[in-house]
Amino acid sequence: MEKKTVVVVDAMGGDNAPVEIVKGAVDAVNKSDKVQVILTGIEDQVRAELAKYTYPEDRISVLHASEVITTEEAPAFAIKKKKDSSIVVGQKLLKTGEADAFVSAGSTGAVLVGGVLVAGRIRGIERTPLGTLIPTETGVALLVDSGANADCRPSHLVQFAQMGSVYMEHVVGVKNPRVSIVNIGVEEEKGNALVKETFPLLKECPNINFTGSIEAREIPHGAADVIVCDGFTGNVILKLYEGTASTLVHVIKGGLKSSLRSKIGGLLIKPALKSTLKKFDASQYGGAPMLGLNGLVVKTHGSATANEVCNSIIQCITFKEQGINDKIRALLGRDAAKKGSESDKTGKEEA
Amino acid sequence: MEKKTVVVVDAMGGDNAPVEIVKGAVDAVNKSDKVQVILTGIEDQVRAELAKYTYPEDRISVLHASEVITTEEAPAFAIKKKKDSSIVVGQKLLKTGEADAFVSAGSTGAVLVGGVLVAGRIRGIERTPLGTLIPTETGVALLVDSGANADCRPSHLVQFAQMGSVYMEHVVGVKNPRVSIVNIGVEEEKGNALVKETFPLLKECPNINFTGSIEAREIPHGAADVIVCDGFTGNVILKLYEGTASTLVHVIKGGLKSSLRSKIGGLLIKPALKSTLKKFDASQYGGAPMLGLNGLVVKTHGSATANEVCNSIIQCITFKEQGINDKIRALLGRDAAKKGSESDKTGKEEA
Repeated sequence: MEKKTVVVVDAMGGDNAPVEIVKGAVDAVNKSDKVQVILTGIEDQVRAELAKYTYPEDRISVLHASEVITTEEAPAFAIKKKKDSSIVVGQKLLKTGEADAFVSAGSTGAVLVGGVLVAGRIRGIERTPLGTLIPTETGVALLVDSGANADCRPSHLVQFAQMGSVYMEHVVGVKNPRVSIVNIGVEEEKGNALVKETFPLLKECPNINFTGSIEAREIPHGAADVIVCDGFTGNVILKLYEGTASTLVHVIKGGLKSSLRSKIGGLLIKPALKSTLKKFDASQYGGAPMLGLNGLVVKTHGSATANEVCNSIIQCITFKEQGINDKIRALLGRDAAKKGSESDKTGKEEA
Repeated sequence: MEKKTVVVVDAMGGDNAPVEIVKGAVDAVNKSDKVQVILTGIEDQVRAELAKYTYPEDRISVLHASEVITTEEAPAFAIKKKKDSSIVVGQKLLKTGEADAFVSAGSTGAVLVGGVLVAGRIRGIERTPLGTLIPTETGVALLVDSGANADCRPSHLVQFAQMGSVYMEHVVGVKNPRVSIVNIGVEEEKGNALVKETFPLLKECPNINFTGSIEAREIPHGAADVIVCDGFTGNVILKLYEGTASTLVHVIKGGLKSSLRSKIGGLLIKPALKSTLKKFDASQYGGAPMLGLNGLVVKTHGSATANEVCNSIIQCITFKEQGINDKIRALLGRDAAKKGSESDKTGKEEA
C-alpha cells in the first residue's frame, strides 16, 4: 500500500476556526483515503468539533498546542515567542519529516515567517516565494512571488521561475508551462533594474520554458502559466486583480438598478452572471503554496470555509505523490548548485 | 484681455494622425476662445486637413517639422537623431517659453524622453513623472508615476506626491486631496525598501494631505485622490486595471450568450451596462500630464480620436490659468529647496 500523505492542519487559524477548519479536515479524509490529517490547536476545542462528525477516526489525530497567533501580532515576534502555537507546533513536523504538508488559514505573515524559521528552506533555496493561482480567461496561472518577499534579487526570481514551473507542470498539470516575467513593455531593454538584470538569466535558464516579458494587461487573458515577479509587485497585482473585479461587479450591479428595463434584465441574467463570475473567484483554486521549504506550506484565505480547506488538503496529496520537493532539490537545491548561494551563510534557517 | 494659453499639438503622433489630431485642434479653438494652437508636423499634410474645416484661422498656426518619430524607434535615440521631428520641434517651444503646453498621441517613450531632454525640467525637480487619471467608483484618482521612471528613490516619490497634489487640487478641482503610497499592507512597517524609506518622508511632508498606505485592492474604490508609486509599479497598476476590466466585461458578455433567458436579459441591460462602463473608460479623462517640466506635456492615448485630443488641449488652459508650474516652483523648485538636489549635477537637462 502506498504511504499516505500526512497533512498538518492549523485548526486555530482563520476567521472561521476551528469550526470550518475541522469540518474541512473531516471532508478531506472522507473524500480521499490517501491522506492522514493531524489537527494542531487547543485540544478540547478541536475534539468538540470533531465529535460532530462521522469519519475514519484513525485518519485524524489531534496535537495539542496551547497558544494561538492572531493576525494583529507582528509575525516574526509571534513565531519566536509563541513556541506552543498551532503554527509553530504544526510546522515543526515538516522539519522533522513527520508530516508532508502544513495547511493554515491563519496570519499570512506568521505562516510565511514560520515556514522559513520553523519548517526551514530546502538547502540551496535563497528565498521561498508564495505562489497564488489566479483565474484567467483561459484557465489559471501561478503568480510567484505573490507577497512573501517584498525585495528580491535576480537570482531569487530565477529560482521562483524554476519552482513555479515544477509546480504548474506536476501539481496543476500544465505541460511545459509558459514562464513570463512581469514587465512594463515586451522589449528586452524595458523594465526596472531588477527586471533588466533578471531577463537574460531567465533566457539562459535551461529547465524552464521562458517566453519573455508579460505586460500586466495580458495577465487576465491567460498569456502565461507562470508569472514571475518580486513579492511587492506580485502582491499589488493580486490585490488589484481582486479589487478591480469586485468593484466592477458592484458597479455593474448598481447600474442595473437604474431603470425598470435594466432591473428586469438584471433578474434574467442573474444565473449566467453568477456562474461566469465564479470562474473569476480565486477561492475556487484552494490555497497558495509556499515553495522551497521542507515539506509544503499552504496558505488558504483567512475567510476560508470547509470547502477551501478540504481542497487545500487534497492538493497536498498531488504535491507529495509527484515528489515536487525532490524535483526542486534536483533542479536547484544545493546538490544541484554549481556555486555556493547566499543560503550558505544562513544555515541556521535551514533544516 | 487675458493672455491665451498656447498649446503645441503634435499633428503627426498617434494611430489616427493627422486626421483626428487636426480635427481635435479645430474643435478646441471652436470650443474655447482662451486657446491658441500651433500644429507641428509635415506642413502639406496638416494644411490639407485644416482646409476641411471652418475655424478662427488666426488661432491655429502650422509649424513645419519634416520628420516623424514612430513607436518602433528607441525613444532616446530618436529624440537625439530626429531634430526636425514634430515632437522635438514642438517641445522646443516649451523650453523657449513660446508655448505653454505640448500635446501628443505619439510614442510615449519619445514624448517622455523629449520632455526631459528638450523641454527640460523645472530647476530642483529630480524626476518628472507621468500622472494618469484613473476612474474609480467615486470619481477619479491621479496615479503618479504611471510609467515614466521605472526605478525611483524616496525623494523622487515625495516630489511626485507634492506635484500630484497640486495638480489634483488646482486642475482637477479636488480640495485638499488625499495622498496615499501604494503598499502591500496598511501598517507603517510594511512594504519594500523603497516604500519603507519613503513613508516617514511623506508623513513629515508639510504641504500634502498624506493619509498613509493604500493597498491595491482599495484603488478602484476611490480610497485616495493621489496615488504615489514608482513608475514600474504604476505602470503595472495602470495596465492591469485596464486588462482586468476589459477581460471581465468580455467574459460577462460571453456568459450572457449562454442561454436564451440570459440573451434576452442581456439585451434589456445593454443601455445601462454601456453607461456604467463608460464611467470606467480612461479615455474620458483626457491625456496624462507629465509633471515638473518647463510647460506642460500631455500624453494622450495612441488611439486618441478628436474628442480626446480636444479635451487634452482644453485641460491645458486650466493648467496655465491656475499657474500650476509657479505653484510647483514655489513648493519644490530650486528656489524652495533647502539643499542642492541631484539635478544640480545634471544642469544640461534643464532649461
